[in-house]
Amino acid sequence: MKAAIFKEQGHIAVEEVAKPKPTNPDELVMRVVRACVCGSDLWWYRGISPRTANTSVGHEAIGIVDQVGTNVHSVVPGDFIIVPFAFSCGTCPVCQAGFEATCPNGGFFDAGDPGLGAQAEYMRVPQADGTVVVVPGGLERAQTFSDEMLANLLTLSDVMATGYHAAATAEVKAGDTVAVVGDGAVGLCAIIAAQLRGAKRIIALSGHEDRQKMAVKFGATDIVASRGQEAVDEVKALTAGWGADAVLECVGSHESTATALSIARNGAIVGRVGVPHGEQVDAEETFFRNLGLRGGPASVRTWDRKILLDAVLDGSINPGQVFTAEYDLDHIAQAYDAMDQRRTIKSLIRVSDI
Amino acid sequence: MKAAIFKEQGHIAVEEVAKPKPTNPDELVMRVVRACVCGSDLWWYRGISPRTANTSVGHEAIGIVDQVGTNVHSVVPGDFIIVPFAFSCGTCPVCQAGFEATCPNGGFFDAGDPGLGAQAEYMRVPQADGTVVVVPGGLERAQTFSDEMLANLLTLSDVMATGYHAAATAEVKAGDTVAVVGDGAVGLCAIIAAQLRGAKRIIALSGHEDRQKMAVKFGATDIVASRGQEAVDEVKALTAGWGADAVLECVGSHESTATALSIARNGAIVGRVGVPHGEQVDAEETFFRNLGLRGGPASVRTWDRKILLDAVLDGSINPGQVFTAEYDLDHIAQAYDAMDQRRTIKSLIRVSDI
Repeated sequence: MKAAIFKEQGHIAVEEVAKPKPTNPDELVMRVVRACVCGSDLWWYRGISPRTANTSVGHEAIGIVDQVGTNVHSVVPGDFIIVPFAFSCGTCPVCQAGFEATCPNGGFFDAGDPGLGAQAEYMRVPQADGTVVVVPGGLERAQTFSDEMLANLLTLSDVMATGYHAAATAEVKAGDTVAVVGDGAVGLCAIIAAQLRGAKRIIALSGHEDRQKMAVKFGATDIVASRGQEAVDEVKALTAGWGADAVLECVGSHESTATALSIARNGAIVGRVGVPHGEQVDAEETFFRNLGLRGGPASVRTWDRKILLDAVLDGSINPGQVFTAEYDLDHIAQAYDAMDQRRTIKSLIRVSDI
Repeated sequence: MKAAIFKEQGHIAVEEVAKPKPTNPDELVMRVVRACVCGSDLWWYRGISPRTANTSVGHEAIGIVDQVGTNVHSVVPGDFIIVPFAFSCGTCPVCQAGFEATCPNGGFFDAGDPGLGAQAEYMRVPQADGTVVVVPGGLERAQTFSDEMLANLLTLSDVMATGYHAAATAEVKAGDTVAVVGDGAVGLCAIIAAQLRGAKRIIALSGHEDRQKMAVKFGATDIVASRGQEAVDEVKALTAGWGADAVLECVGSHESTATALSIARNGAIVGRVGVPHGEQVDAEETFFRNLGLRGGPASVRTWDRKILLDAVLDGSINPGQVFTAEYDLDHIAQAYDAMDQRRTIKSLIRVSDI
């Protein structure tokens, strides 16, 4: 089968590799229908974080169950499933509490292990019963899905659920004024999530015109285009000096975290899903403002099953619009390049037809 | 009138000062019935944090309304009230969200302003309508209260509400396993709070035998007497390696904060009420474990009115037991010394009869 392989900084190749099969009774193998490139893939693509050469890549995919191990009971071959970016046992106290992306028995698809890469024709899914999200209706219904619906469902493997994790951990509730820091695909999905949870006002911090337009389309009521102290001042001005009732941090840099804390109303929670890189948070300032800091790797399966899958299937949300460019697997190098050069918000990879 | 006055490190005097009167229409003056000494008073008493000499002290009191400003509408002279450690406007978005101790329009009683000290025969209460907690039934009912009930009500000015703030911000829910770091009066009250919110198991980290006994009386199911890594290992062993569903941090030191984060289950929230002193929190480790960090100065009025006042009045909680020694105002120097020397958990000051 074909699979995307990381060769070196800035170089992704498509190579012929062995088709994976279940390596233990709990695994399944999925035929990939759609995959995509994540903003976090750019970390190693750009050489900022290390990655072993010749490893298979990708951690976002939807597709059809191809083979199941003897201990997989929740799906059968032919089922249509969403694969979150992390696998998890589904039964431990961490999974039961709804934080399966930090399950100590689980792991990340993007760790470079053979067969786990989602940017491929087939992929292995460990701990299948504790990991996958089943789209009801099976193959028959899946064959009726439009390309738009498939794009929407694909976001439920990561970005839409990650945006929702920001909103859920920030405890966005009906009537809130919410600020969203970051206008990448996750930030844009966080706007959808805030609206889905009933936010009255959504302030998007976005400096890029194409993303501002999409932010408004997704429900943003105000756009703040500046950065740093200027952005803080603008959000304060928009909220009569009080700050936002909830802040969704979707970048992870030192500056964005500082901005997120500064624009939060005393007593508010910053829900963060932007991956931090060595940041420290001042425990004293946050204390005297009663600020909360929550978040981390998203609970994809929990939020998909609780709310997001229904919201996509019934048409109430359309997060698939974050895919502004589409490629086939043979042209995945271009998909990476387009994101690296910011020509697209997020690249979709059309791997196979249903 | 008599008031406790800070003279210098280790020296509290009782002096005759002018009886306060309302300095603006929103204020009231209360005749103090009971006051007490707070663990946080020891910071300046011991010279660890600075304090101006000859300032009036104390920030926890209950008593009878003596005079009201012309714009005070929620109480009349003769009402029996609880005064939280902070005053607040009661109307801004921060107060409305239930975080009145960080109200930008308010302030702390213990800032040294004339007439605001609670360890005195009378005290001023700014922003009375947004600050005080009214005990229903007025003077007539107050006269029926036992000394034990007065002690219980006095904890609602700070420590019981602060312990509850830890449990509320850590989002303790029915069935949880909760760990409480710190065995001072606040940590002990946090145990009561965890039980009140339905915790199934409460692990108290306490190294002092007298406090361990009280912890068990208040609902602790397990005691961990060690500190540092040993304490972490013991809590992990008690929770089958997973850590606690919620952690209440009631100390505020670097070591206690690190312990609190280490004994939290992935996805759990650390609710902190121990005042930090310059600590930094690693934003990366907490992220990859989906740990939440919330808390700050307690929402005394909010929790009193929502749950604690009823729980005290109907006898379901008895937090007044944290007062293990009692003094009159003339002997307040001994009350400070007893706490400084750890001869008492918390010193009650009997200021006047109802």
